[in-house]
Amino acid sequence: MPTDSFIFDRITIIGIGLIGSSLALSAKKTGSVRHITVCDINKAHREEALELGLADETTGDFIEAVKDADLVVICTPSGSCGTVASAIAPGLKDGAIVSDVGSVKQAIIHDVAQHLPDGVHFVPAHPIAGTEHSGPSAGFAELFEGRWLILTPPAGTDEDAIKKVSTLWERTGSNIEIMDAQHHDMVLAITSHLPHLIAYTIVGTADDLGDHLKKEVIKFSASGFRDFTRIAASDPVMWRDVFLNNKEAVLEILQRFTEDLTFLQRAIRWGEGDKLEELFKRTRKIRREIIEANQA
Amino acid sequence: MPTDSFIFDRITIIGIGLIGSSLALSAKKTGSVRHITVCDINKAHREEALELGLADETTGDFIEAVKDADLVVICTPSGSCGTVASAIAPGLKDGAIVSDVGSVKQAIIHDVAQHLPDGVHFVPAHPIAGTEHSGPSAGFAELFEGRWLILTPPAGTDEDAIKKVSTLWERTGSNIEIMDAQHHDMVLAITSHLPHLIAYTIVGTADDLGDHLKKEVIKFSASGFRDFTRIAASDPVMWRDVFLNNKEAVLEILQRFTEDLTFLQRAIRWGEGDKLEELFKRTRKIRREIIEANQA
Repeated sequence: MPTDSFIFDRITIIGIGLIGSSLALSAKKTGSVRHITVCDINKAHREEALELGLADETTGDFIEAVKDADLVVICTPSGSCGTVASAIAPGLKDGAIVSDVGSVKQAIIHDVAQHLPDGVHFVPAHPIAGTEHSGPSAGFAELFEGRWLILTPPAGTDEDAIKKVSTLWERTGSNIEIMDAQHHDMVLAITSHLPHLIAYTIVGTADDLGDHLKKEVIKFSASGFRDFTRIAASDPVMWRDVFLNNKEAVLEILQRFTEDLTFLQRAIRWGEGDKLEELFKRTRKIRREIIEANQA
Repeated sequence: MPTDSFIFDRITIIGIGLIGSSLALSAKKTGSVRHITVCDINKAHREEALELGLADETTGDFIEAVKDADLVVICTPSGSCGTVASAIAPGLKDGAIVSDVGSVKQAIIHDVAQHLPDGVHFVPAHPIAGTEHSGPSAGFAELFEGRWLILTPPAGTDEDAIKKVSTLWERTGSNIEIMDAQHHDMVLAITSHLPHLIAYTIVGTADDLGDHLKKEVIKFSASGFRDFTRIAASDPVMWRDVFLNNKEAVLEILQRFTEDLTFLQRAIRWGEGDKLEELFKRTRKIRREIIEANQA
């Protein structure tokens, strides 16, 4: 669906991984931007970005990267967004918009906003989309189609800047939702961060078994385990940063989970089948609600 | 791939759920059996079995059901296999083979074998296949294609009986593996029972949140949570029985899992990113091994 009107003339994507490369492909395909600069400290990734047609130009220099940009999207792991903001701040032009794609919002807002000069607008964003693959070659233009894009602009953010970032993401096929950053972090702790932590844990537990048993776990993984391994194959650095930067919400929901697991463990030990069955019937209903909400 | 030679003339399937109905469809389609009797205490399921072409005849009477059967496959939840064995025992003909499809093997062997008369052969089996759906209409002939079928015959089991049950399952498209029952229960505790328990727990934890938060969990479930809800939608009674009947192995692996989760929880609390990253890199490798083993 290319259109005649660019939303932005020049955008800069900093960090060309799965999300950055998918955004680049989609923004070009939908005619949302005229020119894309990719900035990445990894030279091999910059070269790959050019080969894959993700960028009109690339650079490893932060100031150079952003000096003419109307929009800068930070697509690095959430723990480094603050460092990136500090590095680009002196190069940003007046009226530029800065955005990000991080899975945690309060910490990123705290880390980034403090570095940005007056006259630059910050519109934090989180596309709820991804795969277990990473790197520039993992991207594809359709990644965001039909997926949620959550914006968490702090009170007082320029309405026009919000509108432009929102339109860019709408054209990728995303459904836009605006939310308070704190609320975002709690919702995502439940729907995304805890499931990932659990999946990483159980796959790690299996990896620690003796070699003979481990071989059979792989062989018979189709019985449930396999679904966890896909989640537990997600980008290690990105997820390390998620847990460190959404610590409070993750620890709170983890505490609830552990209590609930202990309750089931006790029911198994004491042979209390009714408690197990009651829960298993209840969880089945949730699946139906998700199917009805068209999320399955 | 129908063939000219039946493996069994008459078989009886007791309990016509997802596995029983899929076995019936596949056994007919592949020409493995001439006549199928379905026995189920649920009248509506018996009627459905006839309508769906799963059975040549149906009955709610256990003795009647098995009196001419060359093979009886118990497809009820694992907790009721002993009761079924006790009910059918007086009706079994000399030389009949009894099998089952339960997800736990030691408990079923204990519960079933004690009731079977001399001259009847018991060949315990576990098809590692399923979906989150249940009931007679959930079955399909292709369910077992390319999936594992584990046989756990006790020492001294009649070789010819093992061979015939094995051939029946081979024709459904399963890959056959023979294993000690105790070893089976530990491997499955890791690959299947623990993942299901975890999935049930996390979906339950989400269900206990306030209504407003719960609605958003459903809305944004695509970010990881959704994969767990599919697993947690599996048959409640079947899974209750699995946990009660594989208690020792499940509790042992659950203990390891909890220790590992506590380790990560502590790493998050103290900001020890290196510990998180080290694990997340390790788990990614397991995914690769599973893909290489063609299980993904």
